[in-house]
Amino acid sequence: MGRAEPLAVLRPRTPEEVARAMAGLNRLSQTVVPQGGLTGLAGGANPRPQDVALSLAGLSGVIDIDRDARSMTCLAGTPLAEAQAAAAAEGLMLPIDLGARDSCLIGGNIATNAGGLRVIRYGTTRANVLGLEAVLADGSTIGALRKMIKISLGPDLSALMIGSEGTIGTITRAVLRLVPQPAGRLTALCALSDFPAVLRLLTRARDTLPGLSAFEAMWASFFRLMSEMRGSTLFADAPPLAVIIEAETDGSDAERLRFEALLEAAIEAGEITDAILPQSLRELSAMWSVRETAGMEQAMPGLVNLDISLPSTDLGRFDEAAADALRSALPGAATFSFGHVGDGNLHLCVHLPGTDPEAAIHEVDDVIYPLVGRMGGAISAEHGIGTLKRDYLGQSRTAADLAALRRVKAALDPNGILNPGKVLPL
Amino acid sequence: MGRAEPLAVLRPRTPEEVARAMAGLNRLSQTVVPQGGLTGLAGGANPRPQDVALSLAGLSGVIDIDRDARSMTCLAGTPLAEAQAAAAAEGLMLPIDLGARDSCLIGGNIATNAGGLRVIRYGTTRANVLGLEAVLADGSTIGALRKMIKISLGPDLSALMIGSEGTIGTITRAVLRLVPQPAGRLTALCALSDFPAVLRLLTRARDTLPGLSAFEAMWASFFRLMSEMRGSTLFADAPPLAVIIEAETDGSDAERLRFEALLEAAIEAGEITDAILPQSLRELSAMWSVRETAGMEQAMPGLVNLDISLPSTDLGRFDEAAADALRSALPGAATFSFGHVGDGNLHLCVHLPGTDPEAAIHEVDDVIYPLVGRMGGAISAEHGIGTLKRDYLGQSRTAADLAALRRVKAALDPNGILNPGKVLPL
Repeated sequence: MGRAEPLAVLRPRTPEEVARAMAGLNRLSQTVVPQGGLTGLAGGANPRPQDVALSLAGLSGVIDIDRDARSMTCLAGTPLAEAQAAAAAEGLMLPIDLGARDSCLIGGNIATNAGGLRVIRYGTTRANVLGLEAVLADGSTIGALRKMIKISLGPDLSALMIGSEGTIGTITRAVLRLVPQPAGRLTALCALSDFPAVLRLLTRARDTLPGLSAFEAMWASFFRLMSEMRGSTLFADAPPLAVIIEAETDGSDAERLRFEALLEAAIEAGEITDAILPQSLRELSAMWSVRETAGMEQAMPGLVNLDISLPSTDLGRFDEAAADALRSALPGAATFSFGHVGDGNLHLCVHLPGTDPEAAIHEVDDVIYPLVGRMGGAISAEHGIGTLKRDYLGQSRTAADLAALRRVKAALDPNGILNPGKVLPL
Repeated sequence: MGRAEPLAVLRPRTPEEVARAMAGLNRLSQTVVPQGGLTGLAGGANPRPQDVALSLAGLSGVIDIDRDARSMTCLAGTPLAEAQAAAAAEGLMLPIDLGARDSCLIGGNIATNAGGLRVIRYGTTRANVLGLEAVLADGSTIGALRKMIKISLGPDLSALMIGSEGTIGTITRAVLRLVPQPAGRLTALCALSDFPAVLRLLTRARDTLPGLSAFEAMWASFFRLMSEMRGSTLFADAPPLAVIIEAETDGSDAERLRFEALLEAAIEAGEITDAILPQSLRELSAMWSVRETAGMEQAMPGLVNLDISLPSTDLGRFDEAAADALRSALPGAATFSFGHVGDGNLHLCVHLPGTDPEAAIHEVDDVIYPLVGRMGGAISAEHGIGTLKRDYLGQSRTAADLAALRRVKAALDPNGILNPGKVLPL
């Protein structure tokens, strides 16, 4: 994970400068690490001492917002929050949103196929990229800045760039999808007695709320820990599972009544044992503060935050199996789980008291990732692979798939200059 | 476009048989053309006499529907209509839909990134594929049958298969996204006086109707032709533009009132000059029959149906420029345009009386595609490239982009056995 001082940092200001720099580096077979906002959690942008860093931060700005095409064209180094604000100024919304919004850059969001807080409604970054341009290792540019959603022009190399973490090309500009700004938002915190009830509530919410925009589950140990950290007393005792449901609405009374009817029906059906509707912005913020993990790692140094995905149905079973496996392999391990259940995404946080944090990560990985692999899950849902998960990638991608990927990488980057040592197992 | 008798037709029944067949063909450097339902319009599945055809039709069936993950897993040879019916039987809807639904196969839909009738609401096929498996030229299998929407596992080779028309790999199984079945559907046919009014109505519809599921514009010459063909008298005179608006609803009166209020507001604002709400299923069907093109080519032999995409804003300007260019290059040319305006997709139909149909196609292409290229459009929105548009692909993809694609193709199919002569310009 360590981030060494690179040989040099290049700070291009235009896509053309990226192309010229890349062509030069390629002639010298000089390795290069593309960098966005440096908010990644898997080490994908960390240079080694022998690498040149290529910062995209100077390639910043919104180029165009097209209201008819519902699109925004921007440079890859534009901070996410700046892109969001530009869309909002036009009365539209950029669907991509994540905690690091003020620091992370659009190019990095695309290069990691960032997930975040609105995936259940708007998909991951992949679903919100209409077009992109990327510079290959030889300095040539692929892709196009298209605003249309309907294109069938043969195999799409742009699609290969999404989630590629700078190993195939460097994204310089992109066209992003915009959506209408929701007029209103409704939120509730629910207590549930087991995971099957969570799944039933999810089905009910999806069937009744077309604007369902968050469905965040917190297991008891996580909810208790965070409630104590925030001094929150939302539920006197932590329920086996707590779920925050949020829906975007048109602001009408009809939609509010529908939301409340959903909760009543779920209580009647025994899915929910208790529910809290926030009565003020302060209460709303208190509710979300229990779900947000800011400060959690400070409070519990060495905490390992795993980011895995599995079919929603399997999340409950996986969480139990993972806790069992950890307890028997690593006595003293404590787990704290929360997840975007509708996305099949679980964050399993593991604390190993008295263990060196750097060592602890891979001790936990060694127990959990084979289990994820056996259940057909993904060892990364939204954090990416980088160096942190690189040597476990074989748990989620087959040997044949990785062999094919190496062939594609060699074809497009024959000198291996692009982000070496990242993503692909050594 | 001609479809020759191939050397042989292989009819594998399982993904494993596809893999074994492919490995054998590759050892012999025998060229192979993967085939779906043979409904494509660009010649992508047409074999030459020296090719082996690989029919996926025997690889048929829905494997699994997961209600919690909102997903369907099926074999590539499953007919689209069969997959739709299987989803409907579970109370869900497969968002992919197109006119060829009874004959086209899921694998072909993915291999051409099929568009169709619900793209404005649910995106193209790309947006509805959660996971897929494909067999490469050497018989190895890439990808995975994942049901999760949140995955970040490095560069995604599956994404490269979507729209690849069998030139990179052969799709054998896929996991598709399912959505709730809409409870209701509201439709109106509107008359408008110019294209700017169409764009204003589109913005209004998108802002007010979260369930907007179709926005189909018909230019006067198309509307007049089809009205005469169907014996329809929906509007006494063909307006400069006619638009069918359709929205999926929850079936409530509130949504019906909102739909009607939208139309009233658009009439008041002068965007719409007239509107018809169908009063029966028969009237609804009559309305759509004017938009559907079945029988159009029979009535007008040699009609050339172009399928291009451009930012919505530019469609009106493009349609005029295209008609002008055709009239001056090909005297006697008549144009009939209709389009999925929200998707930026225009179907420009051109009739050249007295010209040999085969020759007419490329005479029209030579006039239109350079214009599409200059305006930054795509020469194929939903039909694909195949052989028909192959030699024009340079109008929509740069030389550098195509050079990179050739390198990827050579890396994954070094003997060039997969669908040779398709997509990539010779």
